[in-house]
Amino acid sequence: MPLEWSGLSPDLLLVVDRDSGEPLRSQLERQVRDAIRTGRLQVGERLPSSRELARLLGLSRGLVQECYAQLQAEGYLVTRVGSATRVAAGAVVPSAPTPSPQAPPRLLADFRWGVPDLSGFPLADWLSATREAARTMPTAALDYGDPRGSAVLREVVAGYLRRVRAAAADPERIVICSGYAQGLGLTLRALAGAGVRTVAYEDPGSPATVSASAAAAGLSAVPVPVDERGIDVAALAATEARAVVVTPAHQWPTGVVLAPARRLALIEWARSRDAVVIEDDYDAEFRYDREPVGALQGLAADRVIALGTVSKSLAPALRIGWMLCPPALTDAIVEHKQINDRGSPTLDQLALARMIESGRFDRHLRRMRATYAARRTALVSALAEHAPEVRVSGLAAGFHAVAHLPGPVDEQDLVAAARSRSVGLYGMSPCRSSHATAPAQLVLGFGDVGERAVAAGIAAIGDLLRNR
Amino acid sequence: MPLEWSGLSPDLLLVVDRDSGEPLRSQLERQVRDAIRTGRLQVGERLPSSRELARLLGLSRGLVQECYAQLQAEGYLVTRVGSATRVAAGAVVPSAPTPSPQAPPRLLADFRWGVPDLSGFPLADWLSATREAARTMPTAALDYGDPRGSAVLREVVAGYLRRVRAAAADPERIVICSGYAQGLGLTLRALAGAGVRTVAYEDPGSPATVSASAAAAGLSAVPVPVDERGIDVAALAATEARAVVVTPAHQWPTGVVLAPARRLALIEWARSRDAVVIEDDYDAEFRYDREPVGALQGLAADRVIALGTVSKSLAPALRIGWMLCPPALTDAIVEHKQINDRGSPTLDQLALARMIESGRFDRHLRRMRATYAARRTALVSALAEHAPEVRVSGLAAGFHAVAHLPGPVDEQDLVAAARSRSVGLYGMSPCRSSHATAPAQLVLGFGDVGERAVAAGIAAIGDLLRNR
Repeated sequence: MPLEWSGLSPDLLLVVDRDSGEPLRSQLERQVRDAIRTGRLQVGERLPSSRELARLLGLSRGLVQECYAQLQAEGYLVTRVGSATRVAAGAVVPSAPTPSPQAPPRLLADFRWGVPDLSGFPLADWLSATREAARTMPTAALDYGDPRGSAVLREVVAGYLRRVRAAAADPERIVICSGYAQGLGLTLRALAGAGVRTVAYEDPGSPATVSASAAAAGLSAVPVPVDERGIDVAALAATEARAVVVTPAHQWPTGVVLAPARRLALIEWARSRDAVVIEDDYDAEFRYDREPVGALQGLAADRVIALGTVSKSLAPALRIGWMLCPPALTDAIVEHKQINDRGSPTLDQLALARMIESGRFDRHLRRMRATYAARRTALVSALAEHAPEVRVSGLAAGFHAVAHLPGPVDEQDLVAAARSRSVGLYGMSPCRSSHATAPAQLVLGFGDVGERAVAAGIAAIGDLLRNR
Repeated sequence: MPLEWSGLSPDLLLVVDRDSGEPLRSQLERQVRDAIRTGRLQVGERLPSSRELARLLGLSRGLVQECYAQLQAEGYLVTRVGSATRVAAGAVVPSAPTPSPQAPPRLLADFRWGVPDLSGFPLADWLSATREAARTMPTAALDYGDPRGSAVLREVVAGYLRRVRAAAADPERIVICSGYAQGLGLTLRALAGAGVRTVAYEDPGSPATVSASAAAAGLSAVPVPVDERGIDVAALAATEARAVVVTPAHQWPTGVVLAPARRLALIEWARSRDAVVIEDDYDAEFRYDREPVGALQGLAADRVIALGTVSKSLAPALRIGWMLCPPALTDAIVEHKQINDRGSPTLDQLALARMIESGRFDRHLRRMRATYAARRTALVSALAEHAPEVRVSGLAAGFHAVAHLPGPVDEQDLVAAARSRSVGLYGMSPCRSSHATAPAQLVLGFGDVGERAVAAGIAAIGDLLRNR
């Protein structure tokens, strides 16, 4: 039966319910905390003595004292010896509404690229893997660890990449990092320390990302054109670069595969120039049409550093990736990881190891491949129906495609016009080092857009994509 | 009833138990996977057709096909059209034993500093907080997020630091990072971008950490002496530095508190020199003797950047920290965080927010304060009994103390002698910029050493600590 108490402060209302199942101390703590947070109890306000409150609520005095001590520890209350317990200065948070994290604008369809199907994330699997990992980990796993990351995860990732990516993966030379961005940053810092001054990148590609990361490492970045066989290795060789960032399995964003001759030429270039190839293996998990192309790293582990991540295969918010490091760079990369953040969070790493080991990771990937294939089909059909003049390329893998628009289009106008119809479109220009808007192309991401939304989104803007 | 099958390979032994509760497909998958991992099935070995295996085990053919498809996705098997299913090349991992993560040498007592009580980590609380956070988070929380970190955690941390540390905490200017090391690194990079060339640090202090982080940011680092009132601000003013790393609440490692006049002088120095104070609030949670000293940041939010972490309050392996950034540096720090790693893992952040909001975090801290106080008492008693000539200082907070040894001692010899008696001791010299071993001092960490181990450890080496 609830008992109410309203004492010195007319607005203080404490209700203790002995039948609720919630421990009495917890009820009391929660209610006093809420009274302070919501401003019902003001800063400086005096609380009843523990003896008084205990009597009024029919609780033991020890329980009330424990409650006050806990809230004092949390900074809500202050108690001075020989004086009353009061609401602490600074206890009341200005009543800013708790912001909802990054509520995206409500769109009919948002063809933003680089985002996987977020609602498909295997949350229950991840939570059980976390629980299982926590249950079996030694206490020492809670300490600072090897900056390379958990030995358990490195072992599991090595086995996985050997099997699935034909990589030459040695757990001793794997560094677990927080994703592609950190992997690239650590690599470029290590290269800067080894005397490299210039890093090349594919064009189109990710000019902003590579340039920012290179600048932070004190390097300059130069673009090298990509054609239908991948990066132009002859053009690369004409630059000063002694490092290059490439996406051989599925070029970002064009979707072409690096041709076999080019793969060999690239490795030959690295050998003859004492250079390093940075392989961004960003969506190797999602190839539909045939066996995935093996990692370039498997061909030349001494010259290639492969970067992988779960940002596309599971979720970006996990912030887990890995680096397969060449022997000559491993120590420097590990040192930079140590300086940078002392290693990645351990429990998350152990959870990922469980996900992979138990097969839950691959089960998820298989499900996702089917999902993305269906969305791809929906996209192709919708374009064929509503904008047949648009050619689509780069569909062999992943969850984005390039749409080639007929004739000249003002990219910015098109994007704005689509947005006014609640469709998010993204042009090719930010992927080009020149930021050129011609030839007119869109990068259509369909990772986090359901089949129906794909169809509805394209239907809504089909006329904008056709030559006007 | 278990059914066995041993077919083409005499060593292949598959057992399907319909009464085990484990789904049949999962049993089959697991056993084939194990057979490959342990080498019972060799690379290239042919598996029975799905039809054949299904018949032999009394399973449906679809189930066996699903099992083969899953193991193919995991890279254990290869199936070519019109050909048999075989064990894939690269499927067998070299049988390196799974290394146990960082098994520390078995010592009677290891007075390593900087490590909290790892077995006291509230794992059950952390896992429920993770589950609760996961249950209530919006799907969008799985995406890349604000590089500053989760808005929910920033709000909670701001409220907490205002209450408990009297900090001037604005969630808009909080950046969640992966701990002190990353916080320092991002700060120094932002300062380098703002034209700062030299950063000062306390001596004794953490010369190696600050110097490495400064070097990575392109800065030089200079030591400034600490006396019994904290850092010598006049000596600081005599350097070229326009930034300084300090531990005002509990100086690392001496344990002195920055005197009130020095606090004001430090802020005055920063104002007059257009400089920044980097406040490492490393163990503010663990003060025993009286109210904790408020954060310096609360006095001058425009000049002080405060760095906090859960490495001492929860566990280093979580890799979560926060930065309270001055307005002039916030944008640059956020940009560096974005380039560095795109933000910290979201689910961990939401779990920490739950821990704090629900009071579980403070409940843990209160428990730990009692634990560390008891260990401190055990240390003081053991030293009084076994080495009364040793003076102990810096005990007002945290979980380390400085032992002042009588007369000259060879630090290296002492450490080695203690180690031969299975006691881990650590000298003061690495904390000194000069690496000087005189005056003879030890930094005794008792965070992860139980009371009995403290007593036994000191008993075992008492004679080594006394003047010989």
